[in-house]
Amino acid sequence: MRDQATQESRFQFTKLEDGFEITLRGDVLLRHTSAQPLLFAGYGEETMEMYRGNFDIRDYVIERIALRYAETEVTEQSIRITFSNVKNGEPYITLEVKQGLRDLQIDFIQANAALNRLWFRLQADAEEKVYGCGEQMSHLNLRGKNFPLWTSEPGVGRNKKTYVTWQADVIDKAGGDYYTTNYPEPTFVSSRKYMCHVETTAYADFDFRQPQYHELQMWEVPSSIVIETAESFLELTSRISDRFGRQPELPDWTYNGIWLGIQGGTAVVEKKLEHVLSKGLKVGGVWCQDWQGKRITSFGKRLMWNWRWNPQEYPGLDRKMQEWKQQGIRFLGYINPYVAVEGDLFQTAKTNGYLALTEQGEVYLVDFGEFYCGVVDFTNPEANEWYKGVIKENLIGFGLDGWMADFGEYLPIDLVLHNRKPAKLMHNAWPVLWAKVNYEAVEESGKLGEVVYFMRAGYSGIQQYCTLLWAGDQSVDWSLDDGLASVIPAALSSGLLGNGLHHSDIGGYTSLHGNKRSKELFMRWAEMCAFTPVMRTHEGNRPYDCWQFDSDDETLEHLVRMTDIYAALSPYTRELVRINAEQGIPVQRPLFMHYEHDIRSYDIQYQYMYGPDLLVAPVYQENQSAWSVYLPKDEWVHLWTGESYPGGGEVEVAAPLGCPPVFYRKSSSYAELFRSAAGIQG
Amino acid sequence: MRDQATQESRFQFTKLEDGFEITLRGDVLLRHTSAQPLLFAGYGEETMEMYRGNFDIRDYVIERIALRYAETEVTEQSIRITFSNVKNGEPYITLEVKQGLRDLQIDFIQANAALNRLWFRLQADAEEKVYGCGEQMSHLNLRGKNFPLWTSEPGVGRNKKTYVTWQADVIDKAGGDYYTTNYPEPTFVSSRKYMCHVETTAYADFDFRQPQYHELQMWEVPSSIVIETAESFLELTSRISDRFGRQPELPDWTYNGIWLGIQGGTAVVEKKLEHVLSKGLKVGGVWCQDWQGKRITSFGKRLMWNWRWNPQEYPGLDRKMQEWKQQGIRFLGYINPYVAVEGDLFQTAKTNGYLALTEQGEVYLVDFGEFYCGVVDFTNPEANEWYKGVIKENLIGFGLDGWMADFGEYLPIDLVLHNRKPAKLMHNAWPVLWAKVNYEAVEESGKLGEVVYFMRAGYSGIQQYCTLLWAGDQSVDWSLDDGLASVIPAALSSGLLGNGLHHSDIGGYTSLHGNKRSKELFMRWAEMCAFTPVMRTHEGNRPYDCWQFDSDDETLEHLVRMTDIYAALSPYTRELVRINAEQGIPVQRPLFMHYEHDIRSYDIQYQYMYGPDLLVAPVYQENQSAWSVYLPKDEWVHLWTGESYPGGGEVEVAAPLGCPPVFYRKSSSYAELFRSAAGIQG
Repeated sequence: MRDQATQESRFQFTKLEDGFEITLRGDVLLRHTSAQPLLFAGYGEETMEMYRGNFDIRDYVIERIALRYAETEVTEQSIRITFSNVKNGEPYITLEVKQGLRDLQIDFIQANAALNRLWFRLQADAEEKVYGCGEQMSHLNLRGKNFPLWTSEPGVGRNKKTYVTWQADVIDKAGGDYYTTNYPEPTFVSSRKYMCHVETTAYADFDFRQPQYHELQMWEVPSSIVIETAESFLELTSRISDRFGRQPELPDWTYNGIWLGIQGGTAVVEKKLEHVLSKGLKVGGVWCQDWQGKRITSFGKRLMWNWRWNPQEYPGLDRKMQEWKQQGIRFLGYINPYVAVEGDLFQTAKTNGYLALTEQGEVYLVDFGEFYCGVVDFTNPEANEWYKGVIKENLIGFGLDGWMADFGEYLPIDLVLHNRKPAKLMHNAWPVLWAKVNYEAVEESGKLGEVVYFMRAGYSGIQQYCTLLWAGDQSVDWSLDDGLASVIPAALSSGLLGNGLHHSDIGGYTSLHGNKRSKELFMRWAEMCAFTPVMRTHEGNRPYDCWQFDSDDETLEHLVRMTDIYAALSPYTRELVRINAEQGIPVQRPLFMHYEHDIRSYDIQYQYMYGPDLLVAPVYQENQSAWSVYLPKDEWVHLWTGESYPGGGEVEVAAPLGCPPVFYRKSSSYAELFRSAAGIQG
Repeated sequence: MRDQATQESRFQFTKLEDGFEITLRGDVLLRHTSAQPLLFAGYGEETMEMYRGNFDIRDYVIERIALRYAETEVTEQSIRITFSNVKNGEPYITLEVKQGLRDLQIDFIQANAALNRLWFRLQADAEEKVYGCGEQMSHLNLRGKNFPLWTSEPGVGRNKKTYVTWQADVIDKAGGDYYTTNYPEPTFVSSRKYMCHVETTAYADFDFRQPQYHELQMWEVPSSIVIETAESFLELTSRISDRFGRQPELPDWTYNGIWLGIQGGTAVVEKKLEHVLSKGLKVGGVWCQDWQGKRITSFGKRLMWNWRWNPQEYPGLDRKMQEWKQQGIRFLGYINPYVAVEGDLFQTAKTNGYLALTEQGEVYLVDFGEFYCGVVDFTNPEANEWYKGVIKENLIGFGLDGWMADFGEYLPIDLVLHNRKPAKLMHNAWPVLWAKVNYEAVEESGKLGEVVYFMRAGYSGIQQYCTLLWAGDQSVDWSLDDGLASVIPAALSSGLLGNGLHHSDIGGYTSLHGNKRSKELFMRWAEMCAFTPVMRTHEGNRPYDCWQFDSDDETLEHLVRMTDIYAALSPYTRELVRINAEQGIPVQRPLFMHYEHDIRSYDIQYQYMYGPDLLVAPVYQENQSAWSVYLPKDEWVHLWTGESYPGGGEVEVAAPLGCPPVFYRKSSSYAELFRSAAGIQG
């Protein structure tokens, strides 16, 4: 890498008459003057109401003080800056800034203890684009909006202008908005080739609406803010991954075929498997959420939430699993960080004090909609060990090769934890604690890279502890904010922050307020997922309202073909997954990551690079026979027709069902593989 | 009045070690300490977008500074207080406080010129109730909510949980919310028997959500804040009216009967009149909006907006009016502060420079939905005189005895006015300027008390210049926030601030998104209006979707009976109107105004006292045959049955159509009149 030779920091500190500035490659990144201060600090009183993982959060800012005056003290190791609201006034905040070659470490080493609001500004230019902030499902480029960062249900509809959202809001306070996500993160990537990360778990709100600056709001004085730069986006992503950790490779068996989401017991699974195998479907796994039992609520089918094999529901599963394994089909289950009051695990946890408490010292029960659960307290090391044990014994020990590690984003803000930290500060930390329990259980069982679990909730650090993201609960529709389309920016934004492995429920999940999954939606979703690291179906919350993989022959045949293509591509995909594990470069990538000089590529959010050599532009609207695709300048070959395109603009290609717009780079060393994968069509 | 004898101010200033406090009758009203400052000041950047009178307003508060340190200087005349953010710091704001016997005048005599946000706190107790803030349609007691104060369209639906509101929002940005109103005012009345008024026309937001204090936000440093107290609510309202001015009495002909809203030309009016008169309907006036012509848009019937008699639309109207007048029926028309580009008035105004301009110096054209208008610039004295002349000649001179003086709340915030003041500061002032043009035209014609015009828009001072409020454009439905019910708190809140004369469109106005006016709604609305100072019908924006007074015989017979009752009550009503003109005590009054010691009466918002002797509890839900009424302790007689009630709780009474729950005080000197009015039933 070029810059290691230069040995000169990309960042430059300069004292000004009335403040200071820090440049990045000569352009101002941080600037402080008394007229335009770097920091604002203050006090606020928030109201936060949670309703089944959906939050209504309001802030009353009592004071927002411009810290106009800064005293700087420059030593060889660092720059120490003390801020006050008046000249020679009482110090509010002291920072220590350390410049590395390509990073800037800003530590908040002292702060007025009462402060509970901080605003930090970075200088921006009007053309700059911004990405990341976790897994963002409505926007890839975040410029022009603000992004509250608080892990929660993503919402049903996620757009205040859709009728589904309105109904979800009115009936369940559950409509969500463009920023609601299971996985927020106070980390963003700028098109100026830097990333900025705030070390905090407090509620935050990153505001990218101003043309001249970005303003990061945190509901505490954070411990530090880090800014890193690199010479390319590939390198930058890799460095982000250095910081937050990498995923292991996916197990080999992943590539055997699709993971089928089936429920209903051993006989149902067996019958469905038999049927699809007879049709030639390549199956890598069966994923049975209800392996531990289920219940029916008004929302739809729900699970029992007592984490062990349920032999009534799945008789003979222990032997069956081994049989399936022989056929190359693994069995995946389900777990989450709650234990239902009816189960024996709840009793054990309660007896041993493993559950979070109310302020009155009772076990805190969370209402999940017609049933109640205790919250395993991951700040209690003993509870942690116990729950790891549950995973090791009841899941891995029983023979599961994977599971959905659901939830993590619901931690109520009024419970009392073992570590006595305020729940409001632990809420965002929770997904990572939950991921870590899974990770350590797998690691300590020596199964990393063999067992895989997938999560929707996340926060800073999830990169290391989650083996695979899934995009959460999309609506079973074509909506941009909550349907098929939304999983594309989700993969790209989380990928940029070092979550290289992403996938989604084929066909989406949430069927409410009249929303029913159509055949066409299922088929379009399936064909997109052939170009993601994992293909997996889900029955949806209301299976009988949702088109399924076996609802008719045409659907199944389509799925067979797309899974064949997925399997045929596996040498390429495997290599991408390996690179992710080694270098932290995601499998699905925004176009600008490979086409930095192509200004238009920075705003393309519904197409992606699948590794360096494939460009995928999923059809995300219904009734389409052709589709318009943006191609950066390169030598492109249309996967299905072999036609060449020079790129540098939009092209329209035929896009019947089964032929999602995909292009490969002519010079790719995998060109032959791509051609042969596509040839399966004929 | 008791207190005039005492000669001691109800307010008491005391210096504290670390600040000061001002008590009202011994209880703290204003308090300042460094920990809990009286004032916060700062800087904000607002974004305000207008779409046909609906505003999307957001604020970015850059700085909100607690002015913790106060230097007080007490002289015989006043107390001068200088506030700063730090001890002995630069002065931000200087107040001069003058104590009267029953009032406190707080003048902002100096302020840092850059400040454009101010927050002022009054100490509150948790049980305190708050009223006023103009004409509020969703809440009478404002405690527990914040109230942005910005004159605008009231919104269609006004409740984010209703489907009508959602549709109006999505289609037209027009749904509104609980606080949107044509008539806001930065004035409130506390149950602690004081009123507080801020002298400003800037955007304001009064926040009554905190248990310990009220916080008033203004987007400028206002010139002053006034607090007045009195020994009773009757006296307090009278004092408020002393400050803002009083309405003249209604013309005598008002009481002749109902004002019928009719459109369609002379022949239609004549035919309808003939019909209703033959059925025995008492008619005081016909009100023809389209006397100056009309046009059809997608919203519904709209008017021509060129303010003169349209002889094509109303042939022979000049003679007809005189004929009707002989029968005791006056003719009312319509005007608003805009002139449509197609008319000759626009041409005159444009030629003479009477219209507001764009920043580029062109005539500013406002889009009213498929047609465009110029804005008569009331800050230009010549334009004012000209428009007064239009009213004097084309309306009064032509023989009109009244009109709807529509609009006033739409002033765009990006136009350039003759007085060069920012349109954002003139926007709230506009309704009063518009009212004043009408008032002076009538006054200069010597017609005050003979001619009456009614307005929906208002702001501080409208009290003096508007002869009659109307509640604006309700939806033609039963919704609490935008239907029949909403006009009750509207009358009561505006009445408390000295607008003693209020009425509404019988049946409501807005028929959109599938909303159609039902027969029952029309009848319930009509029977309520028999107990308001004026009965007036409106066809609605989509007459063919709305039940009309002559849609069937039963409706008309009901209207005949209710109008008979209205007319029979007129000796009583006339006396209430006279008292309003003399003392500023409104005709419709909240229960607590007469039952101060009855704690429950402070939260009754859908019942009212009609003068001191009648209690009215309109039926505002459909399909009701009985209705529950709260009666304070007194000797009540049910108007329709003569049954006695001691009050002190809820009672249920039969409430068939035509018998809205109304009670009179047994000891009333009008008891005989009430009995005879009700007897008309038999």
